Amino acid sequence: MDPRVREHAETVVDHSLGLESGDDLVIQVPAVAEDFAVALHELAGDRGANPIYLNNSERAERAFLRARGEDFETPEHQLALHEAADAFVISRGGPNATERSDVPPETTADYNRAMRPVQDERLASDWCLTQFPTPGRAQLAGMSTEAYENFVYDAVSLDWEAQREFQSQMVEILDDADEVRIRSGEETDVTMSVAGNSTLNDFGRANLPGGEVFTAPVRDSVEGTVHFDLPLYRQGREIEGARVRFEAGRVESFSADRNEDVLAGVFDTDESARYLGELGIGMNRAIDRFTYNMLFDEKMGDTVHMAVGAAYPETVGEENERNESAEHVDMIVDMSEDSVIEVDGEVVQRDGTFVFEE
Amino acid sequence: MDPRVREHAETVVDHSLGLESGDDLVIQVPAVAEDFAVALHELAGDRGANPIYLNNSERAERAFLRARGEDFETPEHQLALHEAADAFVISRGGPNATERSDVPPETTADYNRAMRPVQDERLASDWCLTQFPTPGRAQLAGMSTEAYENFVYDAVSLDWEAQREFQSQMVEILDDADEVRIRSGEETDVTMSVAGNSTLNDFGRANLPGGEVFTAPVRDSVEGTVHFDLPLYRQGREIEGARVRFEAGRVESFSADRNEDVLAGVFDTDESARYLGELGIGMNRAIDRFTYNMLFDEKMGDTVHMAVGAAYPETVGEENERNESAEHVDMIVDMSEDSVIEVDGEVVQRDGTFVFEE
Repeated sequence: MDPRVREHAETVVDHSLGLESGDDLVIQVPAVAEDFAVALHELAGDRGANPIYLNNSERAERAFLRARGEDFETPEHQLALHEAADAFVISRGGPNATERSDVPPETTADYNRAMRPVQDERLASDWCLTQFPTPGRAQLAGMSTEAYENFVYDAVSLDWEAQREFQSQMVEILDDADEVRIRSGEETDVTMSVAGNSTLNDFGRANLPGGEVFTAPVRDSVEGTVHFDLPLYRQGREIEGARVRFEAGRVESFSADRNEDVLAGVFDTDESARYLGELGIGMNRAIDRFTYNMLFDEKMGDTVHMAVGAAYPETVGEENERNESAEHVDMIVDMSEDSVIEVDGEVVQRDGTFVFEE
Repeated sequence: MDPRVREHAETVVDHSLGLESGDDLVIQVPAVAEDFAVALHELAGDRGANPIYLNNSERAERAFLRARGEDFETPEHQLALHEAADAFVISRGGPNATERSDVPPETTADYNRAMRPVQDERLASDWCLTQFPTPGRAQLAGMSTEAYENFVYDAVSLDWEAQREFQSQMVEILDDADEVRIRSGEETDVTMSVAGNSTLNDFGRANLPGGEVFTAPVRDSVEGTVHFDLPLYRQGREIEGARVRFEAGRVESFSADRNEDVLAGVFDTDESARYLGELGIGMNRAIDRFTYNMLFDEKMGDTVHMAVGAAYPETVGEENERNESAEHVDMIVDMSEDSVIEVDGEVVQRDGTFVFEE
């Protein structure tokens, strides 16, 4: 076993989850990542925790989704498992990133609605979403398998305490802020209020790699246009050049250069999928390239991302309404050139460089 | 995908489990059997059932068991999942049949005690234990992978209704019987009472393949000598040529040509491990060879098996004592030549041919 697999598992168990004796742990890992699952089981045994091993198989899920098609129900056994569990580690890394490309978007949306109570139970526990480097994911990134392994293990093994301190400077700025304005290139100019909401510092806990700070826009405050100039993979299909116009928080019009129907499926899941649930600032500079994988892409240095759909409860202040949705879809804007983040009228980042770095 | 994989999945879903719309199904399959899991997910979707996909990984389980060592607890999340589920399909077929050979037996015993409530929940539901043909299992059987695949798919795809009828003739004989006498070759001559006990017809439901009828001997009634001339795999070691003498039901002396100490370990587990808990008649003639896999071996045509240790509760009549033990170890006698089964003094099988076949 590659020693970095065990180190990765240790980071998950000790840093991300803080696993304790007696914890009931759910390990949901693709079959090709069995080494990683074995390392996690070994650590669970060592720490006195109790594992259950779910196979995170997009092939199986695709088969089920296509065969069922519609009228999904919340599975009581999955709900019972999630209610009783204390901690979750979910690894991506199936052998084929486009496995779900022939599942109709409305089927996925219907399924996600049914699974929402299950997801909510997971989100209310300690959880960590991470990545196992597979040849399929390397191919998606246009990289050799070895180079991709190096990329993934570099990104997950940052000095997370130093990263937490670096990011805390941006947390302080956003926590006190009213209005955030993001401008980039010719087309992106959007303003939103974050007043009363909290900004979280993601230093490798719920996401590994971490490396962002994020908050929730006030639901009805978003005004303007965004050109998401980095692509996103959704249901095995690449959405390119998405352009979205917000009025009073709501997506009132949109287009995409490629796979616009997938984007439409996202917005049509429920009414709240037309509102932003998250604003995030990518600050992990070990992620120095785009790999068509949101877990990494949204943390990339010199980017911002906005997610339509569900807001994380811990980011929403008591006086604000939380956007609740079955969706949570991140989309990214490259901020490395001709771009500015302003907070309450003051520039805090220009062309990827923060004011506190100058 | 091999079309026989789908047919196998259909047999599980429709014949073994009788899966219905709304059922919450647990699919526990090794990673190498993903094709089988995919077919099961497709059928679950088609029938309106809700799957959860557990990876049946002996490598991960071994890592956990060795790291934890002792003091296992019943995992609440596994228990909650099992309580809420309606149906279970568990497939064997890991890549290495000796994966758990370096787990201390006392660790496995302690773990099994902790998992007993979880197992009891499964046994109280619809469940099916079956097999996926892997190169590792083919190697254990001394067969090519292709020949082993043919063997497995032939054994699981019997006409189970016809098999049920065929076997019911033997069930009727044993249900009314007092004394059973089994003679084979020079050395085997044993008699036992089955009076008051029930005989069950295994036609491919809880086990797939099925293909046996089985009952419990009256605990103290077994008298005589048995030469178990087919070998037995136990804790990764092969017991060959076991010879056992019963007096008033109890094993009073024994020997084995190979690994006699393993056999001694079985008999020394507890006092009831020295008494028979099961008498079974193998009647699946598609299983025409020994493969070191009890799920198949005990169903083989022209064999009988006797298990020392625990009796199945549903086979023991109200007036008889149930043999309760931590062990249940099946051992097999080849009945194809120079062999007779007599029931209450009448021959019911000679050299593998039943009287109702003549």
